Amino acid sequence: PLCLCWALGPAAAATPNILLLLMDDMGWGDLGVFGEPSKETPNLDQMAAEGMLFLDFYTASPLCSPSRAALLTGRLPVRNGFYTTNGHARNAYTPQDIVGGIPDSELLLPELLKKAGYTNKIIGKWHLGHRPQFHPLRHGFDEWFGSPNCHFGPYDSRERPNIPVYRDWDMVGRYYEDFKIDLKTGEANLTQLYLQEALDFISKQQASQQPFFLYWAIDATHAPVYASKQFLGTSQRGLYGDAVREIDDSVGKILKHLQQLGISENTFVFFTSDNGAALISAPKQGGSNGPFLCGKQTTFEGGMRVPAIAWWPGHIPAGGVSHQLGSVMDLFSTSLSLAGLQPPSDRQIDGIDLLPVMLQGKLTDRPIFYYRGNELMAVRAGLYKAHYWTWSNSWEEHNKGIDFCPGQSVAGVTTHTQEEHTYLPLLFHLGRDPGEKFPLSFASDEYQQAVEHISGLVQQHKASLVPGQPQLNVCDQAVMNWSPPGCEKLGKCLKAPESDPKKCSWPH
Amino acid sequence: PLCLCWALGPAAAATPNILLLLMDDMGWGDLGVFGEPSKETPNLDQMAAEGMLFLDFYTASPLCSPSRAALLTGRLPVRNGFYTTNGHARNAYTPQDIVGGIPDSELLLPELLKKAGYTNKIIGKWHLGHRPQFHPLRHGFDEWFGSPNCHFGPYDSRERPNIPVYRDWDMVGRYYEDFKIDLKTGEANLTQLYLQEALDFISKQQASQQPFFLYWAIDATHAPVYASKQFLGTSQRGLYGDAVREIDDSVGKILKHLQQLGISENTFVFFTSDNGAALISAPKQGGSNGPFLCGKQTTFEGGMRVPAIAWWPGHIPAGGVSHQLGSVMDLFSTSLSLAGLQPPSDRQIDGIDLLPVMLQGKLTDRPIFYYRGNELMAVRAGLYKAHYWTWSNSWEEHNKGIDFCPGQSVAGVTTHTQEEHTYLPLLFHLGRDPGEKFPLSFASDEYQQAVEHISGLVQQHKASLVPGQPQLNVCDQAVMNWSPPGCEKLGKCLKAPESDPKKCSWPH
Repeated sequence: PLCLCWALGPAAAATPNILLLLMDDMGWGDLGVFGEPSKETPNLDQMAAEGMLFLDFYTASPLCSPSRAALLTGRLPVRNGFYTTNGHARNAYTPQDIVGGIPDSELLLPELLKKAGYTNKIIGKWHLGHRPQFHPLRHGFDEWFGSPNCHFGPYDSRERPNIPVYRDWDMVGRYYEDFKIDLKTGEANLTQLYLQEALDFISKQQASQQPFFLYWAIDATHAPVYASKQFLGTSQRGLYGDAVREIDDSVGKILKHLQQLGISENTFVFFTSDNGAALISAPKQGGSNGPFLCGKQTTFEGGMRVPAIAWWPGHIPAGGVSHQLGSVMDLFSTSLSLAGLQPPSDRQIDGIDLLPVMLQGKLTDRPIFYYRGNELMAVRAGLYKAHYWTWSNSWEEHNKGIDFCPGQSVAGVTTHTQEEHTYLPLLFHLGRDPGEKFPLSFASDEYQQAVEHISGLVQQHKASLVPGQPQLNVCDQAVMNWSPPGCEKLGKCLKAPESDPKKCSWPH
Repeated sequence: PLCLCWALGPAAAATPNILLLLMDDMGWGDLGVFGEPSKETPNLDQMAAEGMLFLDFYTASPLCSPSRAALLTGRLPVRNGFYTTNGHARNAYTPQDIVGGIPDSELLLPELLKKAGYTNKIIGKWHLGHRPQFHPLRHGFDEWFGSPNCHFGPYDSRERPNIPVYRDWDMVGRYYEDFKIDLKTGEANLTQLYLQEALDFISKQQASQQPFFLYWAIDATHAPVYASKQFLGTSQRGLYGDAVREIDDSVGKILKHLQQLGISENTFVFFTSDNGAALISAPKQGGSNGPFLCGKQTTFEGGMRVPAIAWWPGHIPAGGVSHQLGSVMDLFSTSLSLAGLQPPSDRQIDGIDLLPVMLQGKLTDRPIFYYRGNELMAVRAGLYKAHYWTWSNSWEEHNKGIDFCPGQSVAGVTTHTQEEHTYLPLLFHLGRDPGEKFPLSFASDEYQQAVEHISGLVQQHKASLVPGQPQLNVCDQAVMNWSPPGCEKLGKCLKAPESDPKKCSWPH
C-alpha cells in the first residue's frame, strides 16, 4: 500500500516554500565560488556565502532526462525507467521521437507536495516525455511555462517540427518561430521570460499565502547556448559566459525578490545542475568542470559532480561548506521533509534527507552510484571511487571528433572501448587526485581495504535492485510534437507521418 | 648613473610595512578561493575576502630561482642573468653545484628599501646563489633564517653535503641532520619554525617602530613535501594538502598577529607563489593548477599563472577581484611605491606599480611575457595568448615518465619537440578557453587582429632587450655547501672536492 504521512495543522503557515534552481549542462567549474578563473558569478557566489556550499554533490546520470527523472522521483533512473537496454551502458534521453516517458506508477515530488497544500510550478525544461500522458500537469504540477524537449532546431516542420513552448496545458508557440533563438548571434530572451515567470509566480503565491514549489529548470547553458541582448558580449568567456552571467543575474534577482517580499526565511532555495558541462561543445557552447575529468555523457567526475548551493536565511547557517556526499535525488527527500511529509514507503527511494546536514552540520555516510544506462559504472564511498567499467565513447565516434574528454586523455582510464574492471576495479582517491589521473596500485593495502568496503556496498545494492521497465528503448517519428494540445488555436498543427516504431539508436 | 629618489620626511611613520608571503610550487588551484575541490584554506580564502584577489597574476619563469630573482629585482630573468644559454629554451635554477648567482650589479628590493629606513628579513628559501658573494645579507637583507637551496636530500656528505640552514651570516645546522625532514612520514616542523620567526620579527619591529620588509619564502609545498605532526593526515588531499593546511593556518596566525598588534592597517601583505604546481610530483608531492594546462617547468598557464592575494585593511577595499594582468615583478615596483621610492632609472624594470589597481581599481593594459630560459615562448595581451614556441619536454624524458602535463596531452600544443610558431603563433583566448585546448583558426579575423597586436608588442620588446650575463651555465662540485660560514663553530665543515667546472646540464 502507498502510505503518505504529513504533519497535522495549518500547513501553509508551517511549511516553507521550495525553490529548486536546476541548470542545464552547467559544470562544477562554471561558478566563481568553485574556481571559474574569470569569477563572473557574484550573485551565486554571494548565495553560497549566505548559505551552504556542497562540494561533493552529484547528479544521478550524466545526461539530462534521466537526471531530471531521478530528481523528481528520488530514485535512480534504472529504477524509475529512464534508461535504455538497447545497448550496454548507453546514455539515453527524450528526443522528439521518443515513445516513452515518466511512468504513471512513479510518484513525483509535486504530486506528493500537493498533499501538503503546495502549489507547484515548473518553469523551463520538462524532459520527462512529451506525449500527452507525460504532461507535467498530469504529474503533480499546477502550472507550466516551458518546453518538453531541448531547444534544438530550427526544424523544417517536415522532417521534424520545432519544439513547442507550453503555458500550462496548451502550447503557446514554438522555438525559432514564436520564441526566437538566433543561432548566429546567440541572442534569445528566454532567460528573461523564465525570470519574469518566476518573479510573478512568487509574488502571486506570497499574496495568496499558499506554500509553493517552484522548479526553475532553465536551459540557456545547453547548446545552442543563448543570452539576452544586454548580456551578449559581456563575459570574458564568450557566449557561454554571457549565458552564465545572465543566469547569475537572474538568480540574484530572484533571491532579492524573496527578501523584498519578506519570505526569504520561509523559502528553501537549492541551486544545482542536471549533469556536468558538455565539454564536447566547449569552449563556445560548453562550460567547465574545473579540475575534474571529462564531462557530460561520462561517469568520470566531470560528468557527474555538479555545483550545489543551499540557501535558507535564518535556518541554514551562512558560509557553510559541506563535504556531505549529496545527490539530486536528495532534493526529493529533503523537499518532502521540509513539507513535513514522509517519503513513499512502498518503493526504494535513493535520496536522503539533507536537512540534518544543512541545519545541524551532521554528516551521513552513504555511497554514490554512477550509472550509465543499465550499467553501474562506478561507486564512490568516502573519498574513494571505484570504476567497475570505464568508457568515454567508441573509437568510431571518437575518430569522428566526438570527444567527451578534450585534452584529457588518461591512459587506461578514458578508454574508447568499454573496459570491464569488475574483479579489479580502478580505484582513485578523490581527495589526493580529484582529476582521476592516478589509479591506486592494486597491490597496496589501501587499495585492498577500500575495494573490499566498496564491493560490499555494490553487492548490497545489486542484490536489492529491481530495475524499472526501460522507457527509452523505442523511437517513432509519429510521436513528435506535430500537433501538441493547443496547436489548433494557434493554427500550428502539423501532420504527423505514419507510425514507424524502431529501437532508438544510442551510440554512447 | 644610478638614481634613487624617495619621499622626504620621517619615512618610518609614513611608510607601511611590507610582507611578501611567497609559496613554493603552490598552484593556482590549491586554494579554496581559486576552486580547490576540498576547500581547505579558510584563512587564505578569508584573506581574499578581506583583500583583493588577482585572477590573472603571473610568475616571471616556470621555475623557482629565476622567478625569485625576478621578484626581488623587478626584472625578467633574461635581464637579471637568471637563465642559461647551455641549451635553447631550458629551465635552469641554483642547485648546489651552481657557480653563478645574483650579480652585484642587480639592485634588489631590500637594498632599495634600506634607503627608506626599512629593516629587511628573509625567512625561508633564498635561491639566488649560495656562494658567499650571493649571501642575502650582502644584497640588502638584515636578517635571514632559512636556506640557500631546496631541501633535497638527505645527502651523504661525500657526493654532496646536506643543505645548510642559516641564521643571518652563519649556518646553524643542516637539513636532515639538525633540521629533520622525515621522508617516509613527511613530518618536519619547519613551517612552524618559519611561522615563529615571522611572528617574532613582526613583534620586534612593531616594538622598535621601524618599518619592515619581511620576505616569507617558505617551502613546505615543494617536494619533498612536509608538514608538522599536528597537521599530518588532516587533509582530504593527502600529505600535500597537509602542507597547504599548515601554511593556511600559519598565514591566518600572521594576519591575526598584525591585527592584535594594531599594525594591520600599516602593513601591506601579498600572498603568491614562485611558479605553478609541480604536476610531475602530483598528487602525492604536488598540487593543482585548477583549470589550467600543465604545470611547473612549462609556459602553459599551469606553469606560470599563480595564486595572488593582496591584503591591506583600510586601504585595499575588501572583496575586490581584479583581472589586472600582474606579475611577481610588480611586487618590486609596488613595494618601492609603498615606501615612497622611485624604481631605478638606469635599467629596464619589468614590474609595474599595482597600487592604482589595488587602491583605485584602475586597470593598466600591459603584456605578460612567458620566458623559458633564453627564449620568449609566449605572450599574453588582454585575453589572448600567443605561443611562439611550444614544448613540454623531450620525448626522451617523456618516455622515462617525466610528464609535466599528466593526463593533459593536447595535440599540437603540449609538444615533445620544441616547435617554433614564430610566423604563425598558436593563439588562445584565455577567457573562452583557459585550458589552452582549442587554438583559434589561423584564417579567422579574430586571429589576424589579435596576432597583429601581439606581434607589435613582441617586436617592441625584443628590439629593446639587453640580455644579462647568463648566471646558470656553469656547475662545479667544488662550490657546493661543503663549508658554509659558521660551519667551524658547529664542527660541520666538510672537505670540498677539487674544482671541476662544467657546463650545467639542463634537460628541459
